Amino acid sequence: MTEERRYVILADGWFADRHAKTAHGLIAYGRDEVVAVIDSTLAGRNVLEVMPGLRRDAPIVGTLQAALELSSTSVLVGLAPAGGRLPGEWMDTLSGAAEAGLEIVSGLHQRLAPELPGARVWDVREPPGDVPLFSGDGLRVEPKVALTVGTNSAIGKMTATLEVERAARERGFATEFVATGQTGIVIAGRGICIDAVVSDFAAGAAEQMVLRAAEASPDLILVEGQGSLAHPAYSGVTTALLHGSCPDCLILCADASEEEIFTGVSRPDIRNITLLYEGVAALVKPAPVVAVSLNTTGLDADAAERHIERVSEETGLPAADPVRNSAAPILDAILRTTKT
Amino acid sequence: MTEERRYVILADGWFADRHAKTAHGLIAYGRDEVVAVIDSTLAGRNVLEVMPGLRRDAPIVGTLQAALELSSTSVLVGLAPAGGRLPGEWMDTLSGAAEAGLEIVSGLHQRLAPELPGARVWDVREPPGDVPLFSGDGLRVEPKVALTVGTNSAIGKMTATLEVERAARERGFATEFVATGQTGIVIAGRGICIDAVVSDFAAGAAEQMVLRAAEASPDLILVEGQGSLAHPAYSGVTTALLHGSCPDCLILCADASEEEIFTGVSRPDIRNITLLYEGVAALVKPAPVVAVSLNTTGLDADAAERHIERVSEETGLPAADPVRNSAAPILDAILRTTKT
Repeated sequence: MTEERRYVILADGWFADRHAKTAHGLIAYGRDEVVAVIDSTLAGRNVLEVMPGLRRDAPIVGTLQAALELSSTSVLVGLAPAGGRLPGEWMDTLSGAAEAGLEIVSGLHQRLAPELPGARVWDVREPPGDVPLFSGDGLRVEPKVALTVGTNSAIGKMTATLEVERAARERGFATEFVATGQTGIVIAGRGICIDAVVSDFAAGAAEQMVLRAAEASPDLILVEGQGSLAHPAYSGVTTALLHGSCPDCLILCADASEEEIFTGVSRPDIRNITLLYEGVAALVKPAPVVAVSLNTTGLDADAAERHIERVSEETGLPAADPVRNSAAPILDAILRTTKT
Repeated sequence: MTEERRYVILADGWFADRHAKTAHGLIAYGRDEVVAVIDSTLAGRNVLEVMPGLRRDAPIVGTLQAALELSSTSVLVGLAPAGGRLPGEWMDTLSGAAEAGLEIVSGLHQRLAPELPGARVWDVREPPGDVPLFSGDGLRVEPKVALTVGTNSAIGKMTATLEVERAARERGFATEFVATGQTGIVIAGRGICIDAVVSDFAAGAAEQMVLRAAEASPDLILVEGQGSLAHPAYSGVTTALLHGSCPDCLILCADASEEEIFTGVSRPDIRNITLLYEGVAALVKPAPVVAVSLNTTGLDADAAERHIERVSEETGLPAADPVRNSAAPILDAILRTTKT
């Protein structure tokens, strides 16, 4: 069983910023309770006033003291700054929380356990020490496995996976979400940050998580993808997941942007990258792309609808924006596919 | 400059075994002198009597004492056992060598530095602590870069790379060999073991090595590939190298076997995997497969010739076994290709 937590989220001065994505993810999708957010610049307001898209409310308070009155078990460091290091002044707050008996939960690259001796710290990005090599057992799991892949990194693979999971649960399917990055792991309460695993063991880590998810004999295992086959910095992680998680089908996540995905590296053609994902997967085990999950943020409703229609025509696949509209078309496509 | 070493190779009881591949690689391709091999079961004989294919001779002695008379600087642990751990009785020999002032060089998974306190130890698989993320600078290096890729792991990518390098040097081309695995690193005297790098930084490690190789302004940079896009345990490492090393062209390494490459995973069709390597590479930077390097070990001369001809017809590419015959057709293909 996963431990149940009652979270205070530390996001002082940052709660409304996009760098607070771990905080936002926990509120929107987390299994655990969120009793308060600490942000002195927004104290007295509520989460849904500030971020209505998060769909779950909690009070925003100004200090740790105020939050401690709400009987929490854990403090989440609710920031994933570009450099990965914690704002210095937050360390005092965390020390105070640790002294008050709270667990410190952090998805930062910087590990907090060595800096907070004596505290209970869950450094979410720290992989377990005993990850084995890929064994092949993942090729024989019974539940159907779907993996999200992307035309780029950071275009909503985790969100798409969680929206499909929500839709599946609402229809009564027993569903396991396999978290592979820090925000997903905080949301799920468990998982392995694949990009923090030594390369030799990355596929093995993905496989172990799928094997563990299969132990609950769910109807469906939904694996959060990472990076993109087209992103030169992360394509190794993407490929380790593509083979290691042994999916039966893939959901391609894309957006409407035409920006380069890296200096000098164009956005891939959606049909081309679909064929490449399928081709690379099939070297080990067939896994067709069965639907496209579109992130249409920034488009108005009409433009979004036209974009979704165009991608569906281009690819010959069901396409949907699971946040703007519904994940149902994607879930239906997964349910129609057979195990491979 | 790379440090110059005079090696004693410790391979007691194992020198003629295929698990001594790091020892064999150092003798056949190493820049450094090999003054003796320690194997008490073969003492009094010479390397070329036992392993004529290694092309370089050295005496085989029975004890460390005998080897120490030959003024060496370093002891190579000349074994890469399946489990990665050192035969227990060897540790005494290594302690003795360290006390005699020798450097200990090891490509084992098991790190020796912590077990030999006070000794000078080069744990070849230990990556540097400061590997950065992929930056994109590798996309702009001036020398032509060629990378070996494979239909499977362990089919001779390192050997093919080194044979092409030898052929290039013989023709007077300034050539840099980029070593990405333990045996290659011992041979070259430097390099980073890509599969030992945390996944997030694997592409960055490959890129850094290419940038460093480019500093010498060579005519050609030859990058040792790892794993295979078709091998589920290692495809992440393969892809990180494929994008991280920013190659201008690829050499596909294959053999004549039809065995599965992993339980339940067939050997890939050679044309299919050629297209997939090219397709995945081109998401970042075009890198055509320009030649096939064939490992025809186990075939007689006629069968080898027929196999090479058949693969050349199938792929429409120059094909050669660089060990049995010559690396010249592969080198020619690399020289004909233009930077991408």
